[in-house]
Amino acid sequence: MPDAVPSMRAHRAAKRYIYAWGDGRAEGNGSMKDLLGGKGAGLAEMTNAGLPTPPGFTITTEACNDYFAAGRQLPAGLWDDVLEAVKEVEARTAKGFGDPRSPLLVSVRSGAKFSMPGMMDTVLNLGLNEETLAGLVALTGNERFGWDAYRRFVAMFGRIVLGIDGRRFDEPLEAKKAARGTKADSDLPAADLRDLVATFKGIVRDQTGREFPADPYEQLDLATKAVFVSWFGERAREYRKYNKIPDDLGTAVNVVTMVFGNMGDDSGTGVAFTRNTFDGAKELYGEYLTNAQGEDVVAGIRTPFDIQHLAEQMPAVYEEFVAIGDQLERHYKDVQDLEFTIERGKLYMLQTRSAKRTAAAAVKIAVAMVDEGLIDKREAVTRIEPSQVDQLLRDQFEPAARKAARKIAGGLNASPGAAVGRAVFHYRTAVEWAGNGEKVVLVREETSPDDFPGMAVAQGILTAKGGATSHAAIVARQIGKPCVAGSEELHVDGDAREAHSSLTGLEIHEGDWISLDGSTGEVFVGALPTVSARYEEQTDLQTILGWADEIRRMGVWTNADKPEEAAQARSYGAQGIGLCRTEHMFREGERLEIVRAAILVATQATRAKAKVAAGGALTAAEAAIVAEFDARMGELEALQQGDFEGIFRAMDGLPVVVRLIDPPLHEFLPNRDDLIEQVTRFDATGTPADDPGYAEARRLLAAATAMREQNPMLGLRGCRLGIMIPDFVKIQTRAILNAQVAVRRAGGNPIAKIMIPLVGHVNELKATRELLEAEADRIAEAAGIALDYKFGTMIEIPRGALTADEIAKEAAFFSFGTNDLTQMTFGYSRDDAEGGFLLKYVEDKILPVNPFQTLDDAVAGLMRIAVEKGRAARPDLELGICGEHGGDPESIHKCERIGLDYVSCSPFRVPVARLAAAQAAMADGGFRDK
Amino acid sequence: MPDAVPSMRAHRAAKRYIYAWGDGRAEGNGSMKDLLGGKGAGLAEMTNAGLPTPPGFTITTEACNDYFAAGRQLPAGLWDDVLEAVKEVEARTAKGFGDPRSPLLVSVRSGAKFSMPGMMDTVLNLGLNEETLAGLVALTGNERFGWDAYRRFVAMFGRIVLGIDGRRFDEPLEAKKAARGTKADSDLPAADLRDLVATFKGIVRDQTGREFPADPYEQLDLATKAVFVSWFGERAREYRKYNKIPDDLGTAVNVVTMVFGNMGDDSGTGVAFTRNTFDGAKELYGEYLTNAQGEDVVAGIRTPFDIQHLAEQMPAVYEEFVAIGDQLERHYKDVQDLEFTIERGKLYMLQTRSAKRTAAAAVKIAVAMVDEGLIDKREAVTRIEPSQVDQLLRDQFEPAARKAARKIAGGLNASPGAAVGRAVFHYRTAVEWAGNGEKVVLVREETSPDDFPGMAVAQGILTAKGGATSHAAIVARQIGKPCVAGSEELHVDGDAREAHSSLTGLEIHEGDWISLDGSTGEVFVGALPTVSARYEEQTDLQTILGWADEIRRMGVWTNADKPEEAAQARSYGAQGIGLCRTEHMFREGERLEIVRAAILVATQATRAKAKVAAGGALTAAEAAIVAEFDARMGELEALQQGDFEGIFRAMDGLPVVVRLIDPPLHEFLPNRDDLIEQVTRFDATGTPADDPGYAEARRLLAAATAMREQNPMLGLRGCRLGIMIPDFVKIQTRAILNAQVAVRRAGGNPIAKIMIPLVGHVNELKATRELLEAEADRIAEAAGIALDYKFGTMIEIPRGALTADEIAKEAAFFSFGTNDLTQMTFGYSRDDAEGGFLLKYVEDKILPVNPFQTLDDAVAGLMRIAVEKGRAARPDLELGICGEHGGDPESIHKCERIGLDYVSCSPFRVPVARLAAAQAAMADGGFRDK
Repeated sequence: MPDAVPSMRAHRAAKRYIYAWGDGRAEGNGSMKDLLGGKGAGLAEMTNAGLPTPPGFTITTEACNDYFAAGRQLPAGLWDDVLEAVKEVEARTAKGFGDPRSPLLVSVRSGAKFSMPGMMDTVLNLGLNEETLAGLVALTGNERFGWDAYRRFVAMFGRIVLGIDGRRFDEPLEAKKAARGTKADSDLPAADLRDLVATFKGIVRDQTGREFPADPYEQLDLATKAVFVSWFGERAREYRKYNKIPDDLGTAVNVVTMVFGNMGDDSGTGVAFTRNTFDGAKELYGEYLTNAQGEDVVAGIRTPFDIQHLAEQMPAVYEEFVAIGDQLERHYKDVQDLEFTIERGKLYMLQTRSAKRTAAAAVKIAVAMVDEGLIDKREAVTRIEPSQVDQLLRDQFEPAARKAARKIAGGLNASPGAAVGRAVFHYRTAVEWAGNGEKVVLVREETSPDDFPGMAVAQGILTAKGGATSHAAIVARQIGKPCVAGSEELHVDGDAREAHSSLTGLEIHEGDWISLDGSTGEVFVGALPTVSARYEEQTDLQTILGWADEIRRMGVWTNADKPEEAAQARSYGAQGIGLCRTEHMFREGERLEIVRAAILVATQATRAKAKVAAGGALTAAEAAIVAEFDARMGELEALQQGDFEGIFRAMDGLPVVVRLIDPPLHEFLPNRDDLIEQVTRFDATGTPADDPGYAEARRLLAAATAMREQNPMLGLRGCRLGIMIPDFVKIQTRAILNAQVAVRRAGGNPIAKIMIPLVGHVNELKATRELLEAEADRIAEAAGIALDYKFGTMIEIPRGALTADEIAKEAAFFSFGTNDLTQMTFGYSRDDAEGGFLLKYVEDKILPVNPFQTLDDAVAGLMRIAVEKGRAARPDLELGICGEHGGDPESIHKCERIGLDYVSCSPFRVPVARLAAAQAAMADGGFRDK
Repeated sequence: MPDAVPSMRAHRAAKRYIYAWGDGRAEGNGSMKDLLGGKGAGLAEMTNAGLPTPPGFTITTEACNDYFAAGRQLPAGLWDDVLEAVKEVEARTAKGFGDPRSPLLVSVRSGAKFSMPGMMDTVLNLGLNEETLAGLVALTGNERFGWDAYRRFVAMFGRIVLGIDGRRFDEPLEAKKAARGTKADSDLPAADLRDLVATFKGIVRDQTGREFPADPYEQLDLATKAVFVSWFGERAREYRKYNKIPDDLGTAVNVVTMVFGNMGDDSGTGVAFTRNTFDGAKELYGEYLTNAQGEDVVAGIRTPFDIQHLAEQMPAVYEEFVAIGDQLERHYKDVQDLEFTIERGKLYMLQTRSAKRTAAAAVKIAVAMVDEGLIDKREAVTRIEPSQVDQLLRDQFEPAARKAARKIAGGLNASPGAAVGRAVFHYRTAVEWAGNGEKVVLVREETSPDDFPGMAVAQGILTAKGGATSHAAIVARQIGKPCVAGSEELHVDGDAREAHSSLTGLEIHEGDWISLDGSTGEVFVGALPTVSARYEEQTDLQTILGWADEIRRMGVWTNADKPEEAAQARSYGAQGIGLCRTEHMFREGERLEIVRAAILVATQATRAKAKVAAGGALTAAEAAIVAEFDARMGELEALQQGDFEGIFRAMDGLPVVVRLIDPPLHEFLPNRDDLIEQVTRFDATGTPADDPGYAEARRLLAAATAMREQNPMLGLRGCRLGIMIPDFVKIQTRAILNAQVAVRRAGGNPIAKIMIPLVGHVNELKATRELLEAEADRIAEAAGIALDYKFGTMIEIPRGALTADEIAKEAAFFSFGTNDLTQMTFGYSRDDAEGGFLLKYVEDKILPVNPFQTLDDAVAGLMRIAVEKGRAARPDLELGICGEHGGDPESIHKCERIGLDYVSCSPFRVPVARLAAAQAAMADGGFRDK
């Protein structure tokens, strides 16, 4: 396409603020999104490509920024340029702005670089007043058309530009329709519409204290400024903050000649996509209405035609439209979302942009376009959002049922997933009904911390107010519940226990079944059937991820504690286990009893053993304690060895990082509060001290009290535990290495890595290593084969990161435990913070994001220190991450930049991580050659 | 003094391993402590200065290191050099080593650069065997003298060189004395001594399987190696580790011609100091015995003479000795500790070294020496240990009573201070007696974690085993109790509840009053009276600290919460308050009830206020809650304003840093365990639900449960609290600033700094600052005067340190809260760790030191990052520390190196910090010009 053509007008402004198009030539082009916004650049590009666009011009984003810089004043000269640009449009259309003989009407729309909810939408029919209306009626010979356009314009201008509550205009309209006994606007005769115009103008007068502006130039001036001001509207700002879009981009203003789809049956308007954006099929996909303006399509009162119908209705227009779609798709190398209007048989293109699409469509389209040679594999990998991969692996509504379902309302897709349940309007109802085994969806005007218990038990959450960072949205994402937030057309009456949609008129009463799709932001009537996502069947996804694997530098491993999990993760493409938590195995069934029995004597037994080591003799009581302890630990060792054999088999040939026991021991005892209650109750009811239940309760309470800690997160856990009670290290080492021996003897290839948690000082690692290597030597000797294992550490304590150079001398690998590292770097207890102040912090923007979801930059900075110091001390140090951030795409980008070797995440995040790692390699790569 | 003279012998060894002296010339000199050790360098220096020393030679520390490097082999050629050196001594003394006609006997002593317990002491009379003994007897004509020397030598050599338990030699000696009905060794006739020699040789044969070595050269060889080996003895290693003395210094061996103080009444031996090392008076101070060897002085069976008595007994010798003392003190510019022997009227100097002295003496002597022009003020300031300043401000035993007291035993001065109490031998007894109001001192063989409850209630702790890093020593220092540890002459029988001293023969029974001085390591009979230290009366100390003030760069501020504390700290020289904790004021008397009442409604009231701010209306219940909350907060505000006025008056003209509320709110509620018990008891006993006590207990339990946190240290506290419940920030701001207004109106000069705790993200600071400045503006307007306050923050969260550049933009000052910073950097909960694994960590040397006592290097590294980033963002940023490390001398050195502006510590540490800061400025200074 050509470069920007020289301006066709004399510039009065210091800068070039206006880019016009028409007659097959545009001053701008598609590459100028920064300056012209997406919409303006698209119109320019289409014009230059010879496509039929209505003439118009774009006021640049720079003008918007200068407007704010000047304290909300149009920059000098801009208005003169606008007047000139209007003249050019007048010349191109042979119409006059405000000229009753041949009135030029325009639409005014905002258009930023990125499409953004919360900014000013469109004002149509600008330029109408009593005089031009008369001209329009005369020209079209259609009085009703004229008054209809006028009443729409006054209401739209009143609402969007003058900021009057839209419901004020709805009420008289509804009253008119009620009086006529109809539900369709189109049934209202011209006289009614004329009345409405008068009423609307009265509303404007009441609300603003001024007459509705009749001068088209004043209308244009006000609309332009309204577009600018909408850039700093609250929802727009919130959206930018959430999506990390800078505030200084500004928005452009597009002023486009009106074309009318409502000039009769040879006119129409519609929206279509160059491929099916729901399932990805290669077919024109969309809908249109004849004799209608754009908002009629949205209102949903007339059922639109499928776009294919146009081939019969207007074959020539259809042919032309198909050819244009093809041309644009090839040009942009992506599926296009096209807006068009047909005015008396002539096709006008109003917008082209990359189409939003479902996850399934995105994947299918990307693969197809590679097959067609439109894009290459690298490009295909960038076309998928990691969150879309996540969606593809979640349960979804059955497509046919979804298509057939009645949509109640839409809102922000605040937290993905499909939820089905009975609507409840209070958290207490949610808790009560869920307690009875009911599935519920919590519906609220908005949520507050009080609602948390209800959210926790609900299948999903639906709110009428609030955006992507509202309480509901944040909590829902945090606890992994589907959520549709800020459904503005939904009016919730919590006291009446009902809600109704102003868009569809549908109502929800307490107990009604509803279905919500947190991935698309839609809410449906009834309980839609869901289908579980089967990765094995998603061949296009597998193809994309295969390409991602070719691109990415970092490995993708998984956190798995059991053979089944390991096998599943492997089927998802995991290249190893980055974190196998041994203590999870301690909690199952019979094992808890064994663990508890061992713990109750662990300290005494350890002290007795130290006595023996120092040459002392044991009393009979001490010897009995040691025997009991050793017996229980022996049982545990045998059970754990079996577990490890299973995992080694599942991960045959791939590395398995086993972390030694980490949590504080009192986690394995009964709840201490309950024990206090039990003992008090026994005592208060005069139970004899030798009652067995009482005695056992006292014993457990004494143990729980002895092990109690003020801050268990910072207490006796991790490697500290192994240093205090070395037998834990010993039995776990034996279980791991004997499992390795057994699996190897059976012909397998088990690759063991032993990981020490919570290291803050290199001496902790040395002490543990000594213990462990002594056991390993004994096992190697007994087995008569050389063992093959690596010894490494978690980096999850700030001090560990800060002294990584010393620690690297003792460790072959580091795995960043970013959950704890975040807790300690921030000084947050996650358990306490996420249900408490952290919510407020994210809501109030004190923190940009929950640091337990996305790696904080300061924490990442600490990791970078550790990586640099560690690699300097040991160049072949292997570096990974096993905190939850390992499955978060934005965090994965940070890991790439830091230069980690792999990320490890939960099995179902592995596909997401494979894609994100590839995108990170392309965006942030170059860290190391693979 | 001359440089080292050239060697007088042919070297066979590759290096020069031997430095000899005699005839007024020495090959070494006083500057060669590294190579010759303190003792060898002192002997060389004295010889070169013309003082009478017995000829001898030193085997260097390098020989010791080479001995270990060669796998415990004497380096090649060393032994030949030793033989030559012996020949030189033979020539100088006209005696022969092993020559019966004129036998040369020598002493062999270790001598490292630093004097060190646990290394080999002295073997006297080496060179004796049956033949040389006969010669000695013939030469002296004194058979008893000869056999006495021989039996001493065999026992000493057996014990020290051959490693035989000394008690084996004591037993036959005691038996002989019992048989003779005497308690004094000197009452035994020659025949008994001869029998003992035979018995002792039999013991050696039994224990070693070899005859006692008769060859003097073999004796010398074995003794030399024993000295080397003692360098790596356990106690020596432990001592070095604790005192941070490198292992590779090695020890020298001194071989010195024996001179005999036991050759009659014109002979004698003694120890004296050039000044009084107890009170610092300028007078010769010490004691001697006539007709005795060194060990007789120690054994304490004959009462030694005061050194002044020598002026009458041997006037010429006394004159000479006084002159020598003067000469040495002027030469070394320090008080000397002199060992001497008089052999038949001739004075020999055996050792000179800087004298250990009490804290009081150290201060008096340093000031006196400046007055005398011996040293300058800077040197005087380096002469005082910060711990000595600490001692001077603790209670001490009344000097006269102490002098008159009977000493039971001595040990390591493991934790300073004077303790008086009744001896108890079990922790349970300690707890029980202390519970009855008794003062107790816990006496144990050694302590284990089981003893902790007893240690916590005891006045002091005394153990027979273990060194400076034993459990007892570590815990005692941690909890601030006086402790004498590792008193090896004390034999403790815990079952019999008694102890006896093998040195003094005194016994301690349970219930006996004893007094122990943890500063000197002494234990006395009875309850000694103590005197409290009065800083105002310690003019010498004030003089030294005044000099320190001239030298130091860093300011010394104090942590004080009350006017009285502030006044005391100011009298100690504090230059400001670095930490005034407002919440300490919340806990006193009536206030706790007010605080509790406010807390119980705080969350609801805050939510109600938010509702009003958002334009909502309150229910009657909500309005009542807000009213209750505001009333309580108003009371608190008034009380706090009074507190602050008092503090501002006490610190008139000096800065006062007030920290806003920090601890979690549930700290102000009753203990939750107790509440569970109460509620359960009410319930179990069928109390009606409307019983007022039951209802109140339920209400409090519900509140405590709602506020409960898994890890309160990392929970809702610090600035998080002020963000969640802004009224806390508001009332505290008002109380501080209104207090400032009031005091200023009364003519004072209050300087207020408001400090925000627990900041991890700059936005927390911004949010708090906004709240606070709004209140400040209102107050300024109401008062009609401009307020003068600074706004700053604690840096106590790792993330705060890592993002100090951002935070510094919002803060005029940082104060490092190193308690929390250490907790979070290490991931330790101090409350849990110090009674638990941290003890073991320090005992096992996993950590070199308790990081809550002395700033850890990694934590200091994090502080350095914060200082550099903070100063880069705001060059005039004021930087201080208010964690407990601010009063720890070693930590103060680190603060100097990091470049802080001031340290803040508890009032009684202020003098210590003033001295330490001056020493740091000299040792580590040059950071900034003052």
